Amino acid sequence: MEIQVMEDILGRNDQIAAENQQLLASKGVFALNLLGSPGSGKTSLLEKTMARLKQKFSLAVIEGDLFTSKDADRIAIHGVPVIQINTSGGCHLDAQMVREVLGQLDLEALDLLIIENVGNLVCPAEFNVGEDEKAVVLSITEGDDKPLKYPLVFKESAAAVLNKTDLLPYTNFDLAAAGADIRAIHPGIEVLEVSCSQDKGLEAWIDWLCQRVDAKKTGGERA
Amino acid sequence: MEIQVMEDILGRNDQIAAENQQLLASKGVFALNLLGSPGSGKTSLLEKTMARLKQKFSLAVIEGDLFTSKDADRIAIHGVPVIQINTSGGCHLDAQMVREVLGQLDLEALDLLIIENVGNLVCPAEFNVGEDEKAVVLSITEGDDKPLKYPLVFKESAAAVLNKTDLLPYTNFDLAAAGADIRAIHPGIEVLEVSCSQDKGLEAWIDWLCQRVDAKKTGGERA
Repeated sequence: MEIQVMEDILGRNDQIAAENQQLLASKGVFALNLLGSPGSGKTSLLEKTMARLKQKFSLAVIEGDLFTSKDADRIAIHGVPVIQINTSGGCHLDAQMVREVLGQLDLEALDLLIIENVGNLVCPAEFNVGEDEKAVVLSITEGDDKPLKYPLVFKESAAAVLNKTDLLPYTNFDLAAAGADIRAIHPGIEVLEVSCSQDKGLEAWIDWLCQRVDAKKTGGERA
Repeated sequence: MEIQVMEDILGRNDQIAAENQQLLASKGVFALNLLGSPGSGKTSLLEKTMARLKQKFSLAVIEGDLFTSKDADRIAIHGVPVIQINTSGGCHLDAQMVREVLGQLDLEALDLLIIENVGNLVCPAEFNVGEDEKAVVLSITEGDDKPLKYPLVFKESAAAVLNKTDLLPYTNFDLAAAGADIRAIHPGIEVLEVSCSQDKGLEAWIDWLCQRVDAKKTGGERA
Protein backbone atom coordinates (compact mmCIF):
# COMPACT_ATOMS: atom_id res chain seq x y z
CA MET A 1 0.00 0.00 0.00
CA GLU A 2 2.67 2.48 1.01
CA ILE A 3 4.64 1.59 -2.13
CA GLN A 4 1.58 2.38 -4.25
CA VAL A 5 1.14 5.72 -2.49
CA MET A 6 4.81 6.51 -3.09
CA GLU A 7 4.52 5.60 -6.78
CA ASP A 8 1.46 7.85 -7.12
CA ILE A 9 3.28 10.73 -5.44
CA LEU A 10 6.37 10.30 -7.65
CA GLY A 11 4.27 9.94 -10.81
CA ARG A 12 2.32 13.11 -10.09
CA ASN A 13 5.57 14.90 -9.20
CA ASP A 14 7.22 13.88 -12.48
CA GLN A 15 4.26 15.25 -14.42
CA ILE A 16 4.50 18.67 -12.75
CA ALA A 17 8.29 18.62 -13.13
CA ALA A 18 7.88 18.05 -16.86
CA GLU A 19 5.55 21.06 -17.05
CA ASN A 20 8.05 23.21 -15.13
CA GLN A 21 10.84 22.08 -17.43
CA GLN A 22 8.78 22.85 -20.53
CA LEU A 23 8.03 26.36 -19.24
CA LEU A 24 11.70 27.01 -18.45
CA ALA A 25 12.81 25.59 -21.82
CA SER A 26 10.37 27.85 -23.67
CA LYS A 27 12.13 30.82 -22.06
CA GLY A 28 15.65 29.50 -22.71
CA VAL A 29 16.41 29.14 -19.00
CA PHE A 30 18.92 26.51 -17.87
CA ALA A 31 17.83 25.12 -14.48
CA LEU A 32 20.16 23.32 -12.10
CA ASN A 33 18.99 21.35 -9.06
CA LEU A 34 21.79 21.42 -6.48
CA LEU A 35 21.84 18.54 -3.97
CA GLY A 36 24.01 17.44 -1.06
CA SER A 37 24.18 16.65 2.66
CA PRO A 38 23.75 19.36 5.29
CA GLY A 39 26.99 21.31 5.40
CA SER A 40 28.45 19.90 2.18
CA GLY A 41 28.89 23.47 0.91
CA LYS A 42 26.00 23.97 -1.51
CA THR A 43 25.44 27.58 -0.47
CA SER A 44 29.16 28.35 -0.50
CA LEU A 45 29.40 26.96 -4.04
CA LEU A 46 26.40 29.08 -4.98
CA GLU A 47 28.03 32.21 -3.54
CA LYS A 48 31.20 31.57 -5.55
CA THR A 49 29.09 30.91 -8.64
CA MET A 50 27.05 34.12 -8.22
CA ALA A 51 30.19 36.21 -7.84
CA ARG A 52 31.64 34.82 -11.08
CA LEU A 53 28.54 34.70 -13.27
CA LYS A 54 26.25 37.54 -12.28
CA GLN A 55 27.84 39.93 -14.82
CA LYS A 56 27.73 37.33 -17.59
CA PHE A 57 24.23 35.92 -17.18
CA SER A 58 20.88 36.85 -15.72
CA LEU A 59 20.67 34.62 -12.64
CA ALA A 60 18.12 33.66 -10.01
CA VAL A 61 18.14 31.27 -7.09
CA ILE A 62 15.46 29.24 -5.36
CA GLU A 63 16.50 28.27 -1.82
CA GLY A 64 14.94 25.18 -0.28
CA ASP A 65 15.14 24.96 3.50
CA LEU A 66 13.10 23.38 6.27
CA PHE A 67 12.43 26.57 8.22
CA THR A 68 15.00 29.38 8.10
CA SER A 69 16.01 31.86 5.40
CA LYS A 70 19.69 31.70 6.42
CA ASP A 71 20.86 30.52 2.99
CA ALA A 72 18.62 32.92 1.07
CA ASP A 73 20.05 35.78 3.13
CA ARG A 74 23.56 34.74 2.08
CA ILE A 75 22.55 34.75 -1.61
CA ALA A 76 20.62 38.04 -1.46
CA ILE A 77 23.83 39.87 -0.51
CA HIS A 78 25.08 39.15 -4.04
CA GLY A 79 22.22 41.17 -5.51
CA VAL A 80 20.77 38.12 -7.25
CA PRO A 81 16.99 37.49 -7.10
CA VAL A 82 16.36 34.74 -4.56
CA ILE A 83 13.13 33.04 -3.58
CA GLN A 84 12.85 31.12 -0.34
CA ILE A 85 10.84 27.91 -0.16
CA ASN A 86 10.36 26.61 3.38
CA THR A 87 9.24 23.01 3.44
CA SER A 88 8.14 23.23 7.13
CA GLY A 89 10.22 20.20 7.98
CA GLY A 90 9.79 18.41 4.64
CA CYS A 91 12.94 16.58 3.54
CA HIS A 92 13.06 17.65 -0.13
CA LEU A 93 11.68 20.14 -2.64
CA ASP A 94 9.06 18.85 -5.02
CA ALA A 95 7.90 20.08 -8.41
CA GLN A 96 4.71 21.66 -7.08
CA MET A 97 6.65 23.82 -4.60
CA VAL A 98 8.84 25.07 -7.44
CA ARG A 99 5.87 25.63 -9.77
CA GLU A 100 4.23 27.86 -7.17
CA VAL A 101 7.15 30.30 -7.12
CA LEU A 102 8.20 30.34 -10.80
CA GLY A 103 5.70 33.15 -11.46
CA GLN A 104 7.69 35.41 -9.14
CA LEU A 105 10.67 35.32 -11.52
CA ASP A 106 11.16 37.28 -14.74
CA LEU A 107 11.65 34.13 -16.83
CA GLU A 108 11.88 36.07 -20.11
CA ALA A 109 15.08 37.77 -18.92
CA LEU A 110 16.51 34.78 -17.06
CA ASP A 111 19.43 32.65 -18.26
CA LEU A 112 20.26 30.47 -15.27
CA LEU A 113 18.09 29.30 -12.38
CA ILE A 114 19.81 27.42 -9.57
CA ILE A 115 17.60 25.55 -7.13
CA GLU A 116 19.37 24.70 -3.88
CA ASN A 117 17.58 21.74 -2.40
CA VAL A 118 17.16 20.77 1.26
CA GLY A 119 20.35 19.38 2.81
CA ASN A 120 19.80 15.65 2.40
CA LEU A 121 21.72 13.09 0.37
CA VAL A 122 18.75 10.75 0.03
CA CYS A 123 15.23 12.05 -0.67
CA PRO A 124 15.84 15.03 -3.00
CA ALA A 125 17.40 12.66 -5.56
CA GLU A 126 13.99 11.02 -6.03
CA PHE A 127 12.07 14.20 -6.84
CA ASN A 128 12.62 16.05 -10.09
CA VAL A 129 11.52 19.66 -9.82
CA GLY A 130 11.83 20.70 -13.48
CA GLU A 131 15.59 21.01 -13.73
CA ASP A 132 17.75 20.35 -16.79
CA GLU A 133 20.42 18.76 -14.65
CA LYS A 134 21.15 17.83 -11.06
CA ALA A 135 24.56 18.39 -9.47
CA VAL A 136 25.63 16.92 -6.12
CA VAL A 137 28.06 18.51 -3.68
CA LEU A 138 29.97 16.13 -1.38
CA SER A 139 32.26 17.49 1.31
CA ILE A 140 35.42 15.40 1.58
CA THR A 141 34.91 15.50 5.36
CA GLU A 142 31.91 13.20 4.86
CA GLY A 143 34.22 10.33 3.91
CA ASP A 144 35.10 8.55 0.68
CA ASP A 145 32.64 5.71 1.37
CA LYS A 146 29.65 7.95 0.72
CA PRO A 147 29.21 7.51 -3.06
CA LEU A 148 28.67 3.74 -2.68
CA LYS A 149 26.46 4.27 0.39
CA TYR A 150 24.25 6.89 -1.31
CA PRO A 151 24.42 5.91 -4.98
CA LEU A 152 21.14 7.34 -6.30
CA VAL A 153 22.13 10.98 -5.97
CA PHE A 154 25.33 10.30 -7.93
CA LYS A 155 23.43 8.32 -10.54
CA GLU A 156 20.97 11.20 -11.00
CA SER A 157 23.55 13.99 -11.08
CA ALA A 158 25.42 15.20 -14.16
CA ALA A 159 28.22 16.63 -12.01
CA ALA A 160 29.68 15.72 -8.62
CA VAL A 161 31.54 18.50 -6.83
CA LEU A 162 33.98 17.24 -4.18
CA ASN A 163 34.24 20.25 -1.88
CA LYS A 164 36.48 21.26 1.05
CA THR A 165 39.61 19.80 -0.56
CA ASP A 166 41.56 22.22 1.67
CA LEU A 167 40.80 19.77 4.52
CA LEU A 168 42.28 16.76 2.67
CA PRO A 169 45.53 16.82 4.71
CA TYR A 170 43.54 16.36 7.92
CA THR A 171 41.37 13.46 6.76
CA ASN A 172 41.89 10.03 5.20
CA PHE A 173 39.66 10.83 2.20
CA ASP A 174 40.95 9.10 -0.96
CA LEU A 175 40.09 11.35 -3.93
CA ALA A 176 41.02 8.73 -6.53
CA ALA A 177 38.93 6.03 -4.88
CA ALA A 178 35.93 8.31 -4.46
CA GLY A 179 36.20 9.47 -8.07
CA ALA A 180 36.38 5.87 -9.27
CA ASP A 181 33.32 4.89 -7.22
CA ILE A 182 31.34 7.87 -8.52
CA ARG A 183 32.25 7.03 -12.14
CA ALA A 184 31.36 3.37 -11.56
CA ILE A 185 27.91 4.44 -10.37
CA HIS A 186 27.49 6.95 -13.19
CA PRO A 187 29.83 6.65 -16.17
CA GLY A 188 30.21 10.02 -17.86
CA ILE A 189 29.52 12.11 -14.76
CA GLU A 190 31.75 15.17 -14.37
CA VAL A 191 33.77 14.93 -11.14
CA LEU A 192 35.17 18.26 -9.95
CA GLU A 193 37.48 18.93 -7.01
CA VAL A 194 37.03 22.32 -5.36
CA SER A 195 37.68 24.26 -2.20
CA CYS A 196 35.12 27.03 -1.91
CA SER A 197 36.77 28.49 1.20
CA GLN A 198 40.16 28.65 -0.57
CA ASP A 199 38.68 29.63 -3.94
CA LYS A 200 40.33 26.65 -5.67
CA GLY A 201 39.22 24.50 -8.59
CA LEU A 202 36.19 26.63 -9.36
CA GLU A 203 37.10 27.37 -13.01
CA ALA A 204 36.18 23.85 -14.17
CA TRP A 205 32.84 24.09 -12.35
CA ILE A 206 32.09 27.49 -13.89
CA ASP A 207 33.06 26.20 -17.37
CA TRP A 208 30.83 23.16 -16.96
CA LEU A 209 27.91 25.39 -16.00
CA CYS A 210 28.52 28.07 -18.66
CA GLN A 211 28.56 25.51 -21.45
CA ARG A 212 25.10 24.36 -20.42
CA VAL A 213 23.65 27.84 -19.96
CA ASP A 214 25.01 28.93 -23.36
CA ALA A 215 23.64 25.85 -25.07
CA LYS A 216 20.19 26.47 -23.59
CA LYS A 217 20.20 30.21 -24.41
CA THR A 218 20.91 29.54 -28.06
CA GLY A 219 18.19 26.95 -28.10
CA GLY A 220 20.75 24.24 -28.79
CA GLU A 221 20.31 20.76 -27.50
CA ARG A 222 22.93 19.07 -25.34
CA ALA A 223 24.17 15.70 -26.46
CA MET B 1 -4.52 14.00 1.21
CA GLU B 2 -0.76 13.50 1.39
CA ILE B 3 -0.78 14.98 4.92
CA GLN B 4 -3.42 12.43 5.95
CA VAL B 5 -1.36 9.58 4.48
CA MET B 6 1.72 10.84 6.34
CA GLU B 7 -0.25 11.05 9.61
CA ASP B 8 -1.51 7.49 9.13
CA ILE B 9 2.03 6.26 8.47
CA LEU B 10 3.43 8.06 11.52
CA GLY B 11 0.56 6.89 13.75
CA ARG B 12 1.02 3.26 12.73
CA ASN B 13 4.78 3.62 13.18
CA ASP B 14 4.40 5.04 16.69
CA GLN B 15 2.22 2.09 17.64
CA ILE B 16 4.82 -0.47 16.52
CA ALA B 17 7.58 1.60 18.13
CA ALA B 18 5.71 1.47 21.45
CA GLU B 19 5.48 -2.32 21.15
CA ASN B 20 9.21 -2.56 20.42
CA GLN B 21 9.97 -0.33 23.37
CA GLN B 22 7.77 -2.43 25.67
CA LEU B 23 9.54 -5.62 24.59
CA LEU B 24 12.98 -4.09 25.13
CA ALA B 25 11.95 -2.63 28.52
CA SER B 26 10.67 -6.02 29.66
CA LYS B 27 14.18 -7.39 29.07
CA GLY B 28 15.95 -4.43 30.70
CA VAL B 29 17.59 -3.36 27.44
CA PHE B 30 18.47 0.32 26.93
CA ALA B 31 18.00 1.22 23.27
CA LEU B 32 19.63 4.23 21.64
CA ASN B 33 18.66 5.56 18.19
CA LEU B 34 21.73 7.27 16.72
CA LEU B 35 21.05 9.95 14.10
CA GLY B 36 23.10 12.35 11.97
CA SER B 37 24.05 13.47 8.48
CA PRO B 38 26.07 11.25 6.14
CA GLY B 39 29.66 11.40 7.35
CA SER B 40 28.94 13.04 10.70
CA GLY B 41 30.79 10.18 12.40
CA LYS B 42 28.02 7.95 13.74
CA THR B 43 29.90 4.74 12.97
CA SER B 44 33.18 6.12 14.32
CA LEU B 45 31.43 7.04 17.56
CA LEU B 46 29.96 3.54 17.67
CA GLU B 47 33.38 1.96 17.17
CA LYS B 48 34.82 4.00 20.06
CA THR B 49 31.79 3.10 22.18
CA MET B 50 32.10 -0.63 21.41
CA ALA B 51 35.79 -0.64 22.34
CA ARG B 52 35.06 0.97 25.72
CA LEU B 53 31.85 -0.84 26.73
CA LYS B 54 31.98 -4.35 25.32
CA GLN B 55 33.63 -5.74 28.47
CA LYS B 56 31.22 -3.92 30.76
CA PHE B 57 27.89 -4.59 29.06
CA SER B 58 26.31 -7.04 26.66
CA LEU B 59 25.97 -4.96 23.47
CA ALA B 60 24.37 -5.28 20.06
CA VAL B 61 24.07 -2.97 17.09
CA ILE B 62 21.48 -2.57 14.36
CA GLU B 63 22.92 -0.84 11.30
CA GLY B 64 20.59 1.06 9.01
CA ASP B 65 21.87 1.73 5.51
CA LEU B 66 20.39 2.23 2.07
CA PHE B 67 22.25 -0.58 0.36
CA THR B 68 25.71 -1.56 1.62
CA SER B 69 26.95 -3.35 4.74
CA LYS B 70 30.04 -1.12 5.02
CA ASP B 71 29.14 0.15 8.50
CA ALA B 72 28.07 -3.26 9.80
CA ASP B 73 31.42 -4.66 8.64
CA ARG B 74 33.21 -1.99 10.69
CA ILE B 75 31.20 -2.92 13.81
CA ALA B 76 31.54 -6.70 13.34
CA ILE B 77 35.33 -6.38 13.72
CA HIS B 78 34.72 -5.48 17.37
CA GLY B 79 33.12 -8.87 18.02
CA VAL B 80 29.76 -7.28 18.80
CA PRO B 81 26.56 -8.79 17.34
CA VAL B 82 25.42 -6.58 14.47
CA ILE B 83 22.33 -6.83 12.30
CA GLN B 84 22.17 -5.03 8.96
CA ILE B 85 18.93 -3.44 7.80
CA ASN B 86 19.05 -2.25 4.20
CA THR B 87 16.25 0.16 3.39
CA SER B 88 16.76 -0.24 -0.40
CA GLY B 89 16.98 3.51 -0.81
CA GLY B 90 14.59 4.43 2.00
CA CYS B 91 15.64 7.54 3.88
CA HIS B 92 15.08 6.33 7.46
CA LEU B 93 14.55 3.25 9.61
CA ASP B 94 11.02 2.65 10.83
CA ALA B 95 9.66 0.66 13.75
CA GLN B 96 8.51 -2.27 11.59
CA MET B 97 12.01 -2.75 10.15
CA VAL B 98 13.42 -2.89 13.68
CA ARG B 99 10.66 -5.22 14.91
CA GLU B 100 11.46 -7.70 12.16
CA VAL B 101 15.05 -8.12 13.35
CA LEU B 102 14.65 -7.97 17.14
CA GLY B 103 14.03 -11.73 17.20
CA GLN B 104 17.57 -12.30 15.94
CA LEU B 105 19.03 -10.86 19.16
CA ASP B 106 19.38 -12.54 22.55
CA LEU B 107 17.35 -9.89 24.34
CA GLU B 108 17.50 -11.71 27.69
CA ALA B 109 21.25 -11.28 27.81
CA LEU B 110 21.38 -7.81 26.24
CA ASP B 111 22.05 -4.56 28.13
CA LEU B 112 22.52 -2.00 25.37
CA LEU B 113 21.17 -1.89 21.82
CA ILE B 114 22.42 0.89 19.57
CA ILE B 115 20.52 1.50 16.35
CA GLU B 116 22.53 3.48 13.82
CA ASN B 117 20.02 5.15 11.54
CA VAL B 118 20.41 6.09 7.85
CA GLY B 119 22.64 9.15 7.34
CA ASN B 120 20.06 11.91 7.15
CA LEU B 121 19.47 14.89 9.44
CA VAL B 122 15.78 15.18 8.51
CA CYS B 123 13.55 12.12 8.13
CA PRO B 124 14.86 9.72 10.82
CA ALA B 125 13.92 12.28 13.50
CA GLU B 126 10.24 11.76 12.62
CA PHE B 127 10.22 7.99 13.06
CA ASN B 128 10.55 6.41 16.49
CA VAL B 129 11.74 2.82 16.24
CA GLY B 130 11.31 1.75 19.87
CA GLU B 131 14.30 3.50 21.41
CA ASP B 132 14.58 4.93 24.92
CA GLU B 133 16.50 7.92 23.63
CA LYS B 134 17.75 9.46 20.43
CA ALA B 135 21.21 11.00 20.14
CA VAL B 136 22.38 13.14 17.21
CA VAL B 137 25.93 13.39 15.89
CA LEU B 138 26.86 16.64 14.14
CA SER B 139 30.26 17.03 12.53
CA ILE B 140 31.66 20.51 13.13
CA THR B 141 32.60 20.54 9.42
CA GLU B 142 28.87 20.77 8.65
CA GLY B 143 28.79 24.32 10.03
CA ASP B 144 27.41 25.94 13.16
CA ASP B 145 24.20 27.07 11.40
CA LYS B 146 22.90 23.50 11.24
CA PRO B 147 21.04 23.26 14.59
CA LEU B 148 18.71 26.13 13.65
CA LYS B 149 18.34 24.82 10.10
CA TYR B 150 17.48 21.26 11.21
CA PRO B 151 15.85 21.79 14.61
CA LEU B 152 13.65 18.68 14.89
CA VAL B 153 16.49 16.22 15.29
CA PHE B 154 17.95 18.32 18.12
CA LYS B 155 14.53 18.66 19.74
CA GLU B 156 14.04 14.89 19.63
CA SER B 157 17.53 13.96 20.86
CA ALA B 158 18.58 13.63 24.50
CA ALA B 159 22.23 14.18 23.56
CA ALA B 160 24.02 16.08 20.78
CA VAL B 161 27.55 14.96 20.01
CA LEU B 162 29.62 17.60 18.24
CA ASN B 163 32.23 15.47 16.48
CA LYS B 164 35.49 16.14 14.59
CA THR B 165 36.56 18.88 17.00
CA ASP B 166 40.12 18.16 15.81
CA LEU B 167 39.16 20.08 12.63
CA LEU B 168 38.04 23.19 14.54
CA PRO B 169 41.27 25.12 13.75
CA TYR B 170 40.57 24.74 10.01
CA THR B 171 36.93 25.87 10.07
CA ASN B 172 34.95 28.86 11.36
CA PHE B 173 32.67 26.69 13.51
CA ASP B 174 31.68 28.49 16.73
CA LEU B 175 31.24 25.84 19.44
CA ALA B 176 29.66 28.26 21.92
CA ALA B 177 27.13 29.55 19.40
CA ALA B 178 26.19 26.06 18.22
CA GLY B 179 25.81 24.87 21.83
CA ALA B 180 23.61 27.86 22.64
CA ASP B 181 21.41 27.23 19.59
CA ILE B 182 21.05 23.54 20.45
CA ARG B 183 20.08 24.36 24.05
CA ALA B 184 17.61 27.00 22.85
CA ILE B 185 15.92 24.36 20.68
CA HIS B 186 16.01 21.74 23.44
CA PRO B 187 16.65 22.95 27.00
CA GLY B 188 18.23 20.16 29.03
CA ILE B 189 19.87 18.37 26.11
CA GLU B 190 23.37 17.07 26.81
CA VAL B 191 25.88 18.68 24.43
CA LEU B 192 29.17 16.80 24.13
CA GLU B 193 32.30 17.80 22.22
CA VAL B 194 34.33 14.89 20.88
CA SER B 195 36.95 13.96 18.34
CA CYS B 196 36.57 10.29 17.49
CA SER B 197 39.67 10.30 15.28
CA GLN B 198 41.80 11.80 18.08
CA ASP B 199 40.04 9.85 20.86
CA LYS B 200 39.13 13.03 22.73
CA GLY B 201 36.13 13.94 24.88
CA LEU B 202 34.69 10.43 24.80
CA GLU B 203 34.57 9.94 28.59
CA ALA B 204 31.57 12.25 29.01
CA TRP B 205 29.73 10.44 26.22
CA ILE B 206 30.47 7.05 27.74
CA ASP B 207 29.36 8.28 31.19
CA TRP B 208 26.13 9.66 29.74
CA LEU B 209 25.40 6.31 28.09
CA CYS B 210 26.43 4.13 31.07
CA GLN B 211 24.15 6.01 33.44
CA ARG B 212 21.21 5.20 31.20
CA VAL B 213 22.13 1.56 30.64
CA ASP B 214 22.64 1.01 34.38
CA ALA B 215 19.33 2.68 35.22
CA LYS B 216 17.50 0.45 32.75
CA LYS B 217 19.25 -2.73 33.92
CA THR B 218 18.21 -2.15 37.50
CA GLY B 219 14.71 -1.40 36.32
CA GLY B 220 15.04 2.17 37.59
CA GLU B 221 13.28 5.00 35.91
CA ARG B 222 15.18 8.03 34.62
CA ALA B 223 13.98 11.43 35.73
